[in-house]
Amino acid sequence: MTWFENVDKIKYEGSKSQNPLAFKFYNPEEIINGKSMKEFLRYGVAYWHTFTAPLSDPFGVGTAIRNWDKYDEMDQAKARVEAAFEFFDKLGVEYFCFHDADIAPEGDSLRESNQNLDTIVALIKDHMKDSNVKLLWNTANNFTNPRFVHGAASSNNADVYAYAAAKVKKQLEIGKELGGENYVFWGGREGYETLLNTDLGLELDNLGRFFQMAADYAEEIGFDAQFLIEPKPKEPTTHQYDFDSQSTHAFLMKYGLQDKFKLNIEANHATLAGHTFEHELRYARVNGILGSVDANQGDPLLGWDTDEFPADIYSTTLAMYEIIKNGGLGSGGLNFDAKVRRGGSFDQEDLFHAHIAGMDHFAIGYKVANQLVQDRVFENIIDDRYASFKEGIGKDIVEGKADFKSLEAHALNLKEIKNKSGRLEVIKATINQYLLNTFASK
Amino acid sequence: MTWFENVDKIKYEGSKSQNPLAFKFYNPEEIINGKSMKEFLRYGVAYWHTFTAPLSDPFGVGTAIRNWDKYDEMDQAKARVEAAFEFFDKLGVEYFCFHDADIAPEGDSLRESNQNLDTIVALIKDHMKDSNVKLLWNTANNFTNPRFVHGAASSNNADVYAYAAAKVKKQLEIGKELGGENYVFWGGREGYETLLNTDLGLELDNLGRFFQMAADYAEEIGFDAQFLIEPKPKEPTTHQYDFDSQSTHAFLMKYGLQDKFKLNIEANHATLAGHTFEHELRYARVNGILGSVDANQGDPLLGWDTDEFPADIYSTTLAMYEIIKNGGLGSGGLNFDAKVRRGGSFDQEDLFHAHIAGMDHFAIGYKVANQLVQDRVFENIIDDRYASFKEGIGKDIVEGKADFKSLEAHALNLKEIKNKSGRLEVIKATINQYLLNTFASK
Amino acid sequence: MTWFENVDKIKYEGSKSQNPLAFKFYNPEEIINGKSMKEFLRYGVAYWHTFTAPLSDPFGVGTAIRNWDKYDEMDQAKARVEAAFEFFDKLGVEYFCFHDADIAPEGDSLRESNQNLDTIVALIKDHMKDSNVKLLWNTANNFTNPRFVHGAASSNNADVYAYAAAKVKKQLEIGKELGGENYVFWGGREGYETLLNTDLGLELDNLGRFFQMAADYAEEIGFDAQFLIEPKPKEPTTHQYDFDSQSTHAFLMKYGLQDKFKLNIEANHATLAGHTFEHELRYARVNGILGSVDANQGDPLLGWDTDEFPADIYSTTLAMYEIIKNGGLGSGGLNFDAKVRRGGSFDQEDLFHAHIAGMDHFAIGYKVANQLVQDRVFENIIDDRYASFKEGIGKDIVEGKADFKSLEAHALNLKEIKNKSGRLEVIKATINQYLLNTFASK
Amino acid sequence: MTWFENVDKIKYEGSKSQNPLAFKFYNPEEIINGKSMKEFLRYGVAYWHTFTAPLSDPFGVGTAIRNWDKYDEMDQAKARVEAAFEFFDKLGVEYFCFHDADIAPEGDSLRESNQNLDTIVALIKDHMKDSNVKLLWNTANNFTNPRFVHGAASSNNADVYAYAAAKVKKQLEIGKELGGENYVFWGGREGYETLLNTDLGLELDNLGRFFQMAADYAEEIGFDAQFLIEPKPKEPTTHQYDFDSQSTHAFLMKYGLQDKFKLNIEANHATLAGHTFEHELRYARVNGILGSVDANQGDPLLGWDTDEFPADIYSTTLAMYEIIKNGGLGSGGLNFDAKVRRGGSFDQEDLFHAHIAGMDHFAIGYKVANQLVQDRVFENIIDDRYASFKEGIGKDIVEGKADFKSLEAHALNLKEIKNKSGRLEVIKATINQYLLNTFASK
Repeated sequence: MTWFENVDKIKYEGSKSQNPLAFKFYNPEEIINGKSMKEFLRYGVAYWHTFTAPLSDPFGVGTAIRNWDKYDEMDQAKARVEAAFEFFDKLGVEYFCFHDADIAPEGDSLRESNQNLDTIVALIKDHMKDSNVKLLWNTANNFTNPRFVHGAASSNNADVYAYAAAKVKKQLEIGKELGGENYVFWGGREGYETLLNTDLGLELDNLGRFFQMAADYAEEIGFDAQFLIEPKPKEPTTHQYDFDSQSTHAFLMKYGLQDKFKLNIEANHATLAGHTFEHELRYARVNGILGSVDANQGDPLLGWDTDEFPADIYSTTLAMYEIIKNGGLGSGGLNFDAKVRRGGSFDQEDLFHAHIAGMDHFAIGYKVANQLVQDRVFENIIDDRYASFKEGIGKDIVEGKADFKSLEAHALNLKEIKNKSGRLEVIKATINQYLLNTFASK
Repeated sequence: MTWFENVDKIKYEGSKSQNPLAFKFYNPEEIINGKSMKEFLRYGVAYWHTFTAPLSDPFGVGTAIRNWDKYDEMDQAKARVEAAFEFFDKLGVEYFCFHDADIAPEGDSLRESNQNLDTIVALIKDHMKDSNVKLLWNTANNFTNPRFVHGAASSNNADVYAYAAAKVKKQLEIGKELGGENYVFWGGREGYETLLNTDLGLELDNLGRFFQMAADYAEEIGFDAQFLIEPKPKEPTTHQYDFDSQSTHAFLMKYGLQDKFKLNIEANHATLAGHTFEHELRYARVNGILGSVDANQGDPLLGWDTDEFPADIYSTTLAMYEIIKNGGLGSGGLNFDAKVRRGGSFDQEDLFHAHIAGMDHFAIGYKVANQLVQDRVFENIIDDRYASFKEGIGKDIVEGKADFKSLEAHALNLKEIKNKSGRLEVIKATINQYLLNTFASK
Repeated sequence: MTWFENVDKIKYEGSKSQNPLAFKFYNPEEIINGKSMKEFLRYGVAYWHTFTAPLSDPFGVGTAIRNWDKYDEMDQAKARVEAAFEFFDKLGVEYFCFHDADIAPEGDSLRESNQNLDTIVALIKDHMKDSNVKLLWNTANNFTNPRFVHGAASSNNADVYAYAAAKVKKQLEIGKELGGENYVFWGGREGYETLLNTDLGLELDNLGRFFQMAADYAEEIGFDAQFLIEPKPKEPTTHQYDFDSQSTHAFLMKYGLQDKFKLNIEANHATLAGHTFEHELRYARVNGILGSVDANQGDPLLGWDTDEFPADIYSTTLAMYEIIKNGGLGSGGLNFDAKVRRGGSFDQEDLFHAHIAGMDHFAIGYKVANQLVQDRVFENIIDDRYASFKEGIGKDIVEGKADFKSLEAHALNLKEIKNKSGRLEVIKATINQYLLNTFASK
Repeated sequence: MTWFENVDKIKYEGSKSQNPLAFKFYNPEEIINGKSMKEFLRYGVAYWHTFTAPLSDPFGVGTAIRNWDKYDEMDQAKARVEAAFEFFDKLGVEYFCFHDADIAPEGDSLRESNQNLDTIVALIKDHMKDSNVKLLWNTANNFTNPRFVHGAASSNNADVYAYAAAKVKKQLEIGKELGGENYVFWGGREGYETLLNTDLGLELDNLGRFFQMAADYAEEIGFDAQFLIEPKPKEPTTHQYDFDSQSTHAFLMKYGLQDKFKLNIEANHATLAGHTFEHELRYARVNGILGSVDANQGDPLLGWDTDEFPADIYSTTLAMYEIIKNGGLGSGGLNFDAKVRRGGSFDQEDLFHAHIAGMDHFAIGYKVANQLVQDRVFENIIDDRYASFKEGIGKDIVEGKADFKSLEAHALNLKEIKNKSGRLEVIKATINQYLLNTFASK
């Protein structure tokens, strides 16, 4: 039986192909710097957007046409697993990610929910044996159910806190069971609706304790996945505590969590926080906390989380530049936390189109960024711009040998200060040249 | 004598050139659809950003290094004309635009200001005789001087209104003298600082009267340039009356000005209004009021007018698509209302880098858009999506033969309504293919 | 039987009351300028937010606890009518508004949907006979069902267009049946998801035709309600055609609809469009198209439509100022298109708290604005600021007797132009004084 | 001689006063909680906006009419000192703040600049002797001069870094000389224009070193003022490193500066970062780093720093609530980093109007917040909402006695989880009651 009967295994056909069901730029086996694209790019499929969510929006019910939706509850969940593994196989993607709520229906009690999970996890494990698909990360959905109306690990209700902990505990066990390489925390409702009724200090402290307990429990059961926090500034709550990469860094340092946790950076969340995607990646990289990536994009003119498939090759190029400079993502990957457009792409086939586009666009970004690194384009600019810190007073500063008196002495003797143009327009034009020439030369 | 001694005439060297002082994509003489790129693209240089403004910002004095700034007042103005024409010639641009305040210093009285203008205009006219450079448009700066603190044609002070009218009158005469092809109105302070002390109705009526008087005077003196209003939502004022293209359309219709005026659409102003550049162009095009373009770009994460040189080839492609579909811009052009970055590019040479980049990026956009049009990429999508309006009830609707009763009768007989996926992700991937393939195939 | 058993009829108890189920500022029978507050304020309850919607958000299922939700389908719809009329009565509100989808479940066919509507409309009519509650306006929900995925009257699918027309036709008939005083069009999906696959010109033309047909049909059946368009810039679509008041004015003028249609201005939609609420009201007022108001508020730091209950007394004061200057809203009213907060207020009792707050806050605004008008605070500022247009050259300008030559002559003779400070800080301080003194003096 | 001849000493006249040159709500000697308002509120005047800056904007030259501007250079600087102290005295404000560039003109060399500073500082010191005016804080302007085009302590140019250090060194000495109670760092250009040419890691490290050296030098010279960093997300640069309070907290922890530095929180900067003012204050408060406040406000619909005088009594109330809960601001104060509006208020007298308004509005906020605290309005809400953390499993969590196993055990035994409504609408209505009743009862 097949769930995607009109779709064959997706192949690379080259940039001129007019087949929407083929890769034009992503060539999985192509070797770049001694690694295949497939090995380096570590693409992952998001179970929720791809197999579970109905494409609703605040003003409309779901439009998605998915042929496993004809079943109910557990049968639907089982069909979804089959569909998912067929999709992974046909798309040629080796990683996937899920929340508990995506893979199995919630039961009438926590016990029943856990039993449902056990059934489906066993099924997933079976499928994994027969494929080379791995679990990039899993997580607990502690935001959809009304019990999380005031938050989970930052709830004002200790019962809810305990319930959330139990759900994460179960997911840590499942992560171990399925060999998950990372474990993600996205605090959908860890924040506040209004500061007017919120004990911000207590909530942050409780959140810190929660993460520590999670780390302790993972250690106890021998689950050594990389822990990741995914920053997001707002939505669904008015303010989320893990606002952006630097804010989350503050949180990690304050609660002594910086050795166990890295960040899962999402492009659309960067936009909502008022940053570029590459800014968030860069901040995490230089602070040693870049762990994984949610590869999507937002619309800078809209104020909500559109989670679109990545289509902007400027953005994928600059993102891949950071990832290359990071030496790759380690146990992390590029998870397409992206949904086809409700009003655009409700057919089942659109799931392939969208993932193919996303994979192609990151492949373009990878190749262009790789060429930029090989040619040391940015490195030469940086070397030249910051040369003054390699010698003299600049070297003293960097080596900690300067103080305000030596700096003043230096300044008093300066005749004239010469700054050099930063040449922004030339740099931007150079990036465009690389975009167009990298493929022209093939 | 030369003002740009290290710069020779800019030539096309092809996409692989590493010479920052060469075109890589803009080949002025290349024929596309029977016209040279130079003829179709009608690039213009903005006198203010390029020759006059010092690159200051609200927190810093000017950083621009310009070698004509060593002179004072009228001598500076004269040197600037020479520099400008040398720049036009070396860059190979055939149009320019100015405000009165850009070309000549304001005198102690209106009379003296007009005399200063006469001197410089005569000089400009001399230079124009010896070159093929033409005036794309001129305008009056009715916003910098403190007298315009509460607006010009929407001032609460009738003296200011009269003064503004006198300045526009002079510019209409100068436009005629120099053979200007368009005349632009950008209402920098035509709006309000606060609604709390503003008679919005009177100000709008007065503004309507002002435009009508301008049109009447142009007719009286036989100046038949295309009149253009440039929408902008805010900055410097809190709210500007010509907020965006559709708002300005309302204004034109309300005051009976729609036959005389078209729009000068600026990319960065679109961003500030919450629109894409292509939206503003499209709205103006389908309503027959697309007149000219201020070719720049903003930063969607910043809330102010950065007026950067166009560097986003998605944006230039979609803009050129609208312009091609408009049959070109008629008497309008692509004016680089763009400034080099204060913190980036303060050298005089950066003026060339930036314009070369802008011209290259619009040339890329032109070629890609042209290919998209030739292959009927968007046209085929539209034909297919809207096919139901070519026959049956859809045809009746379009032809005005339907009414609510016939539509209800039709609806009551429908078995099932079938919508088709809009395929957004495929369309975006297709645009990326065109971007990369258009140049790969050369 | 009662649906709100813990709530009695809400009474006015004065500003010191600590009873959350009492009015503190809204005194329905208080006479102001010869009219009771109840008569002038014409408050309306929005059926959808108050009785139908479950308080879900994009990341969570509904949290609302409503005791009529225990029933299914038509029984639920009937219980809802009872609950609604009990609510109107206890709250003392005399108007309500609904979409078809709010009052009756959609059937398997348009015919069945219409039958469901007929049943419920009859029930509503019965309830109306026994109360003094009137229908402020009704409308058709042409955005929730997946068939409207690409729009309704701007759909690319003629069948969908016909279906939307049939739904509006039915609502016009229902409006007539129930004595509706207005009829509203909010084009939730009348816009585009992406310009890349959109025929903007055709869609706008079709939308114009749709409104004309609606007006024709209303005339045919003798339904003489005021027609209203409700502007909103975006959400659910990326761009909506009725972006703001001025854009919608352009639309009305272009399609010759300005005599039949006015605007229904919503505060939160103003915020999303980058305007203040009072700006939207003012623009509509001075152009004679202010029809009715959706009384809510958004969060300027969030980019989506939060539809909160009005709680900002600056905003209600400035809104009421515009409404007083408009001579009231005519057949329009103040409809609380507002929802209690999902994470804040999911109890049934919160519906009372929220409406009481909204009514109190508009009552505060009304009393303060009324005092401002009585004292001619803004009028004196305006008279003084614009005095120059009452005589001399200013009078000539306003009376159409000036031209550019007479204005120049005037300007050339000006010695010095004197502008006066706009005194913004004093005006703002004055408003704060009025806010605090209006109630202190009682 | 007098610089403000039409203005007498500003007195408190009560809420009904129509005298724009009187306090209506700020009564300096009124005792609240055992302290006079003057003692608790510690208002400060910002030298730059009030005495130095010309009210220019990016599209217009300065409009401010200031009668000391008739002098040149040092004479102007001296006149400004006299005007300032007359202003402080007449307004009754006891603190002021300045940048080096505000008080003395820059010379042709650093030495000359320092001599100019010495002259003016001596003059200021003389004036201080004769008054009870104190220096709230001073700082170095390391952003206006073109040398800081690429930043100061984060410049790519070591000479610039040294120059910036020398300027801060001088200001630390001046701070000591004048008995400054705090020293502020606002990194106007400490950030990047574009990430494309920026070594973010090196710049941040250098910035950390700079702050450490400043602290070391202050200790060396025995200047024991509180050090403060003022967060701002952007403007003038595209991205500033001290984006908001939580980001700056990360910076302080990473570079080991958290014991020496607190934050100077500005309302308008909060808005630009996408936060409320009270959020920024709360975050700083619960983390023990709330040091001082820049009391102004922005316009949430504009994307740039308008620095308006505080006029929103919601905002001043919630700000004063945080300050009261913080036990006051210690050595900090409420500095009006605010400018009169360029288009609104260019007269010299407007400086008084605006400060009076700001002082009144913070006094209103103080009195309302004080009443809220006395009545334990928010405290009771918090106690009730978080009660579950005072006993049982909640107490275990807070005391660190829980782990994931005990939490799961608890969760498995829960029958049903009961959340309580957060009652947001009631809370907001209560705040409005307090606003209107606090003054009604007097």
